Amino acid sequence: VTKFFFDNTFSHLKKLVDPKSAIIITDENIFNAHKKKFKGWNVIVLRAGEEYKIQPTVDAIVEKLIELKADRSTTLIGAGGGVVTDLTGYVASVFMRGIDFGFVPTSILSMVDAAIGGKNGVDVGIYKNMVGTINQPRFLLYDNSFLQSLPDAEWINGFAEIIKHACIRDRSLFLELENHSITYYRKNKKPLSTLIKRNAQLKTKVVQRDEKEKGERRLLNFGHTLGHALENQYELSHGQAVAVGMTYACLVSEKLEGFNETARVASLLNKYGLPSFASFNRKKVFEALKMDKKRDSGGIHYIVLEKIGKAKARLVRINHLEKILNQAGT
Amino acid sequence: VTKFFFDNTFSHLKKLVDPKSAIIITDENIFNAHKKKFKGWNVIVLRAGEEYKIQPTVDAIVEKLIELKADRSTTLIGAGGGVVTDLTGYVASVFMRGIDFGFVPTSILSMVDAAIGGKNGVDVGIYKNMVGTINQPRFLLYDNSFLQSLPDAEWINGFAEIIKHACIRDRSLFLELENHSITYYRKNKKPLSTLIKRNAQLKTKVVQRDEKEKGERRLLNFGHTLGHALENQYELSHGQAVAVGMTYACLVSEKLEGFNETARVASLLNKYGLPSFASFNRKKVFEALKMDKKRDSGGIHYIVLEKIGKAKARLVRINHLEKILNQAGT
Repeated sequence: VTKFFFDNTFSHLKKLVDPKSAIIITDENIFNAHKKKFKGWNVIVLRAGEEYKIQPTVDAIVEKLIELKADRSTTLIGAGGGVVTDLTGYVASVFMRGIDFGFVPTSILSMVDAAIGGKNGVDVGIYKNMVGTINQPRFLLYDNSFLQSLPDAEWINGFAEIIKHACIRDRSLFLELENHSITYYRKNKKPLSTLIKRNAQLKTKVVQRDEKEKGERRLLNFGHTLGHALENQYELSHGQAVAVGMTYACLVSEKLEGFNETARVASLLNKYGLPSFASFNRKKVFEALKMDKKRDSGGIHYIVLEKIGKAKARLVRINHLEKILNQAGT
Repeated sequence: VTKFFFDNTFSHLKKLVDPKSAIIITDENIFNAHKKKFKGWNVIVLRAGEEYKIQPTVDAIVEKLIELKADRSTTLIGAGGGVVTDLTGYVASVFMRGIDFGFVPTSILSMVDAAIGGKNGVDVGIYKNMVGTINQPRFLLYDNSFLQSLPDAEWINGFAEIIKHACIRDRSLFLELENHSITYYRKNKKPLSTLIKRNAQLKTKVVQRDEKEKGERRLLNFGHTLGHALENQYELSHGQAVAVGMTYACLVSEKLEGFNETARVASLLNKYGLPSFASFNRKKVFEALKMDKKRDSGGIHYIVLEKIGKAKARLVRINHLEKILNQAGT
């Protein structure tokens, strides 16, 4: 079971792991902006960016671990955004057939989503997270001071997942978000900290009930089916791709569930700096969608909304989905 | 839980998996010698040899699975020796974060050892199985007709593990082996089949009691600590390296446990075509040993014999082990 340390400081890490038997993995952005924090720790610094979430980076980390004489008693700590925590969790799951690991998420996205739930892995070509494992970290340590160096675009990215949580399970969170803005949360530590904890706990609860994604956990894929297919084919951030994916999922929900709040979802996305619609090559995107992990022989488990705050999975054949989206889109 | 189908035929595979949702992974030797068996199946054919048990082969298999439009309902089947089953188990454990898999072991070594127990993975440089997972196959199907194409050297390789089993847990098996020979087992189907089943069940029992290798499973590493360090540095087969490793482990057992049957073990190894002693560069081999996975901060869990048929693990510091081996060696 993963232990959570909310509203904490990086220096607490020393109490969770002995620096002598630990290795921190981070990226150059985090390392350069927070050098002091890492003093006294073994650190592997990666190049920053989703384009490095690939097998060659895993190979390079393994070589480095051998150099550092890591063994089965070593703990890996991923300090960074989703790319760093996904890579760290994956390496820890396969190095010497599995060693301990923990995370210090440093972006909104990783704090409320990516670092939680044990999914890890790397992209293969245009396919996101095609290779990986499900393996839970021993702990998650939250130090919100890392957010001081988070670029604007990354704040926006993180709120895409927060809006997703609100859409699928938490209507009152949706109302709160409508009444505030990114600027508000950036300026007010306490509401931000409460928002992070609320979202982290929402995701944790879903994962605990359904680690292997046979049921409830599927709901977290809301916006991600089309989102993933878009993300690696266009110049979109994860948040932007998911935002577009959510809007189209709302349109599909209109057809399949009589959902009638698409405009409200789209305007909340826009309020938080996210796009809602986008023009894209349908054929190319559906080609990528055919390799989606959520697909099985019967079709794809596509997430739709009955209303804001209530989602469900529908098994839809890909051809059928393509047809609905072609009718729905502009 | 893994299901075992002993004394069976390859054609039974169709009853275990639908060929339409399965992909067989094998190597060119097996494929060319048994082409007829594979008719009607999707097959990925690898180049044969331990030197291909590396990450680039995993990457190539993943690309091929994407090409074949494999999904989460696909079952992978590793039909081959230890290299094929290790690679198949590893790919199945990480592709789309884990899909089903089963094995058809085709060598003595894989039938009695490598295909059993869920350990999989790849070598990294000189380090054996440095990256991998522990994940149990859904089934093991035994078709001894594959052994007709097994080269002499591979028969010898397999008997190294059978002798190991006898040494650590089964004195009566040791006596049986002393009374027979490889030629006897190759010529007599029934005793061979009984021998394979006895050894497969011995290993299965040990693994079931201790999957994560915290106790009893460690005994299976008898001869493997030094063996692994030797194997990738010298031109030795796995069986040869382990045989030499077992002889030296007997010498260490003399010092630590008063063991007095080294000559008997060495002569059984020789009887089955295996070496017992070898000259090697101590410094180089101990350098590799320092990265052994069985090492932790306190030292290495080294397996010694009290007598033939009874092994135990001793936590020994690497420097101490080096000293004993320097005194023991010629």
